[in-house]
Amino acid sequence: MRTPLCDTFGIDYPIFAFTPSEHVAAAVSRAGGLGVLGCVRFNDPDELEQTLSWLDENTDGKPYGVDIVMPMKIPTEGKSVDLQALIPDEHITFVEQTLQKLGVPPLPEGEGREGVLGWLHSVARSHLDVALKHRPVLIANALGSPPVDVIEKCHEHGIKVAALAGAAKHALSHVANGVDIIVAQGYEAGGHTGEVASMVLQPDIVDAVGPDVPVLGAGGIGSGRQVAASLALGSQGVWTGSIWLGTEEYQNLQSNAGWTTAFTRATSSDTVRTRIYTGKPARLLKTKWTEAWAEEDAPSPLPMPLQNLLVADAHNRINASGDPDVISMPIGQIVGRMNDVRPVADVMADLVAEFEETVAKLESIRK
Amino acid sequence: MRTPLCDTFGIDYPIFAFTPSEHVAAAVSRAGGLGVLGCVRFNDPDELEQTLSWLDENTDGKPYGVDIVMPMKIPTEGKSVDLQALIPDEHITFVEQTLQKLGVPPLPEGEGREGVLGWLHSVARSHLDVALKHRPVLIANALGSPPVDVIEKCHEHGIKVAALAGAAKHALSHVANGVDIIVAQGYEAGGHTGEVASMVLQPDIVDAVGPDVPVLGAGGIGSGRQVAASLALGSQGVWTGSIWLGTEEYQNLQSNAGWTTAFTRATSSDTVRTRIYTGKPARLLKTKWTEAWAEEDAPSPLPMPLQNLLVADAHNRINASGDPDVISMPIGQIVGRMNDVRPVADVMADLVAEFEETVAKLESIRK
Repeated sequence: MRTPLCDTFGIDYPIFAFTPSEHVAAAVSRAGGLGVLGCVRFNDPDELEQTLSWLDENTDGKPYGVDIVMPMKIPTEGKSVDLQALIPDEHITFVEQTLQKLGVPPLPEGEGREGVLGWLHSVARSHLDVALKHRPVLIANALGSPPVDVIEKCHEHGIKVAALAGAAKHALSHVANGVDIIVAQGYEAGGHTGEVASMVLQPDIVDAVGPDVPVLGAGGIGSGRQVAASLALGSQGVWTGSIWLGTEEYQNLQSNAGWTTAFTRATSSDTVRTRIYTGKPARLLKTKWTEAWAEEDAPSPLPMPLQNLLVADAHNRINASGDPDVISMPIGQIVGRMNDVRPVADVMADLVAEFEETVAKLESIRK
Repeated sequence: MRTPLCDTFGIDYPIFAFTPSEHVAAAVSRAGGLGVLGCVRFNDPDELEQTLSWLDENTDGKPYGVDIVMPMKIPTEGKSVDLQALIPDEHITFVEQTLQKLGVPPLPEGEGREGVLGWLHSVARSHLDVALKHRPVLIANALGSPPVDVIEKCHEHGIKVAALAGAAKHALSHVANGVDIIVAQGYEAGGHTGEVASMVLQPDIVDAVGPDVPVLGAGGIGSGRQVAASLALGSQGVWTGSIWLGTEEYQNLQSNAGWTTAFTRATSSDTVRTRIYTGKPARLLKTKWTEAWAEEDAPSPLPMPLQNLLVADAHNRINASGDPDVISMPIGQIVGRMNDVRPVADVMADLVAEFEETVAKLESIRK
């Protein structure tokens, strides 16, 4: 399975793995794909610094990427204390009452932490500054094109820039800003996602940006058949995310029994696209928590970055409780195919082997 | 492009074309696919009788299918006059006021007609009775499994039964009822559709029903790349719909300039999944009409079959006005790729040629 992206990045397979876990990212890169570390969880730049140093040393010299969350337009800024004042009491009360109704206990004294600040422009900039001291070959931005000066800085360091797009017109605008690679993020994807599904979105974007801009198909990809489908649609590679949550290496980051139970029993119908995680539409596992927000008396989610600050502590409480009925987890429709926990290398080997079988089968249909 | 379905039905390509137009259906069958005539528009069984006789004579002896709309459970029944009494005044007033706001004039005196009755069980049964006097090779049901006695009657006549499914569990239930072929209808499809997108849904259903039940991929398919993607996902053929609205043969049925303008200018982001057409979620072109129903003061759509009776006359008025900003049209996300009006035979030839190119390209990536 070789496309020009393999030469661009020095990888064996054009399989890109977005993951918040450095253990998963390293294992993917070692297995011939490109592990891309999600930085949004690092509030403290020093922690990211240590993690990237670990990646440098644990990828056998293989390339890796990093993923930041940086809006093109600079949004409301400030410390979390200032922002907290912008959150209406109605919302705070709703969250507290919902957690009580769902039986989620408070955290033990002193175990709370501030919300995820990676959504803030200043924090995402600090992630970038840290990353540039290491050896990422790719910087991806989950919110579309980063500001032009960021793209230029990456290019000065010889780093390619990828940006997520949910519609052809967004992809064109990213390319105009200097983005090198488009991640065509279909409706079925976990996390932030648009309305157009992969089957339509991928060829839309491939045709819009033309042959000089490589496209990665994202959303709904967790098997070699889906990799083949994505490459059939014209993508030069795939961008995967959810499936790596079901790997042994990921358990280092998140290992409560409830989490594993929640995704292994879910079907592809058990997700929902909602603004309750960050303020922008993102696909989550459907649980009692997401359903509470869908009820008539629930308040409308707040804009980014306020919504995540509002629910950050709730997420901590929910995760600590380990109740699979309540868990708050960004995940794609591919969750229906995540039925066990396996080593990253096995998942990679299956993707490649099933891709080859699938193409051989298509070849026999063609003849 | 040959799969076992080609032998089952005596067709050259496993490309199934759902269409309300007998002219399109005949042209698809003549071009080597399987044209499937949608019956829901025939309130009068005699009109369907004449149309199927025309199909018998205009398909060069090639096979064709018919599509009915029959719920497994028998819903509210009765003549349109009785049902009309169940429609709340609030809804009638909203429709009238919306049409006025959008500048849609009333129909000329005497040109109104009753709503589409094909959604009624009794009418769908009459469609079946008429069809059995002709030579369809396939009866498809848009609302999932038809009742078991209907399936048995088809089998007695040597006719295969296909049913649409939007989730693996529905597909399994259809197969348990005796359905022969599953149409895996992804989120991106036009008309009635579920939440799971094709990239995930097709392999889900293929794996659930096993190798003995052929699956047709539906939703988002309008190019040979998408046919290849669908077959990569494990489907044995494709079920297409929207793309045939953009053919010369279709213009016999619906030929106002507004209609063509509306779909040629739309992008894949210009559709919406809503209950306003029939009472069940269906994807339509996004226009001022669909947006009016999405506003806060709009009433909730009524259940099937009431909603279609409510809006049937409005649809007639909107279609007569020919205003592309208002038009009410079930269509899939593939609408973004429908940019001109071409003969059916050309569309078929392109699907086949691009499929072959795509598989050759995948083969070069594999090696």
